[in-house]
Amino acid sequence: MIRVDGVPAVALPLPDRGLEFGDGLFETLLLKEGIPQHLELHLHRLRAGLRALDFPDCLATAAARLQSVADETSNLGATWNVLRLTVTRGAGPRGYAPPPRPRPRIIISVTPLERDPTAEPVPARLGVASVNWPVQPLFAGIKHLNRLEQVMAAREAKLAGFDEAVMRDQDGQVISATAGNLFIVRDGGLLTPVLDRCGIAGTRRRLILEHWAPALGLPAAEARLDLEDLERAEEVFYCNSVLGPRPVASLGGGRWQNHPVCSALHELCWSGPT
Amino acid sequence: MIRVDGVPAVALPLPDRGLEFGDGLFETLLLKEGIPQHLELHLHRLRAGLRALDFPDCLATAAARLQSVADETSNLGATWNVLRLTVTRGAGPRGYAPPPRPRPRIIISVTPLERDPTAEPVPARLGVASVNWPVQPLFAGIKHLNRLEQVMAAREAKLAGFDEAVMRDQDGQVISATAGNLFIVRDGGLLTPVLDRCGIAGTRRRLILEHWAPALGLPAAEARLDLEDLERAEEVFYCNSVLGPRPVASLGGGRWQNHPVCSALHELCWSGPT
Repeated sequence: MIRVDGVPAVALPLPDRGLEFGDGLFETLLLKEGIPQHLELHLHRLRAGLRALDFPDCLATAAARLQSVADETSNLGATWNVLRLTVTRGAGPRGYAPPPRPRPRIIISVTPLERDPTAEPVPARLGVASVNWPVQPLFAGIKHLNRLEQVMAAREAKLAGFDEAVMRDQDGQVISATAGNLFIVRDGGLLTPVLDRCGIAGTRRRLILEHWAPALGLPAAEARLDLEDLERAEEVFYCNSVLGPRPVASLGGGRWQNHPVCSALHELCWSGPT
Repeated sequence: MIRVDGVPAVALPLPDRGLEFGDGLFETLLLKEGIPQHLELHLHRLRAGLRALDFPDCLATAAARLQSVADETSNLGATWNVLRLTVTRGAGPRGYAPPPRPRPRIIISVTPLERDPTAEPVPARLGVASVNWPVQPLFAGIKHLNRLEQVMAAREAKLAGFDEAVMRDQDGQVISATAGNLFIVRDGGLLTPVLDRCGIAGTRRRLILEHWAPALGLPAAEARLDLEDLERAEEVFYCNSVLGPRPVASLGGGRWQNHPVCSALHELCWSGPT
């Protein structure tokens, strides 16, 4: 199911600056029986992205289009669906500079989720990506359409037989998985990489930091972490909006058989209010 | 005029990884009476990009599609046209990892060029962009679809009333204009920024370094340059495939009224064999 500016579509009108330059943003939301999960956190990040890229304020339109499509999916049969919302700066004349009054285009696609995300997750074997995050403080945290590094890292991990990969920045600091935020357990608390220079600030990362870790009585903070910090941690896990928290079974010299903190977060993630 | 995989089109079939992640490459070529100018240099860079992104080898197909469209434009009337060739990794399942056997999609669009590029260029007033190039050695030199920094820098320059802007890397080294490569004249020779960590290696930059500067008896080399090097230079100019070399009239504290080297390069650019 695809909608472009609210209309059923199989194609994107050209020209479009999203295709030409990656001039746009996206969100990936989980739908449960047509209800977008943690919608407000996704819209919050989208708003930050629209501001960072100086887009016209189209948040209300995007939210309305999203809700309309989400409502439709409740008739599709599948309990769980994944909705991708893409906002581009729309058409424009040739060249990098946007037109004076861009008309953002809103593309929404929905695909059913095959597996039940509430089931106990299979621990992931992680590689280490050879491609690093580029440092760009102006876009740190937001989810724009320039994602080549993650594409190449995900491809490398897949070819090497890993489930996921750790991505670092140019200085060797750990930033994220290719499709999710990383956490470690150390000294009874949670740590996750600081994302002030690159990376995407995930919605589940935020829930863990602000709600789920406190609910478990665990301190949780941002920190600068390197690979050794991960390998020596008591637990490692990553999270995203589709999987929730997923434990890590192996990474470099690190092996983990028990994941009590991740299991407790998994319970909270899938039992709490949506 | 737009062609998608050789077929007249007004839209891009969805999903497409070019839109989703900027997973692709492009070239912007000048056509003179239907003849692509310096085609081999564009194809050379495209080949480097296809390799850097581990695309299937679709260079011959891209070249054939390009030639076919270029031939058609000779009937359009305009002497000068600009052709954009975009190659994406095509469709794929949800997620960053490309499918095992991607089928690249080739999108070609042609727009007429309003001004005669052979006319004496108007010297440009340059600003300095506040957004910097991110460092990514793996993609340095190639022309992929992740171009948000140039979009934001071009927007900033336009809003501030400049014709173009100098973009630096995170360390303050000068890399390029938003849409072209920079050169300075110093001590009777040409210098242009090294592009081993970021930036796009332009076709006209290569022609200047390898052919046009030598033809004028001028030494030309790559160097690490900062803003002060530009402001103190005897001449500053930038170049791209549509404009050729264009002199700079002002940049920060620098003002230039005469541009003898750039003028000589302009003559060579538009008089030589295509």
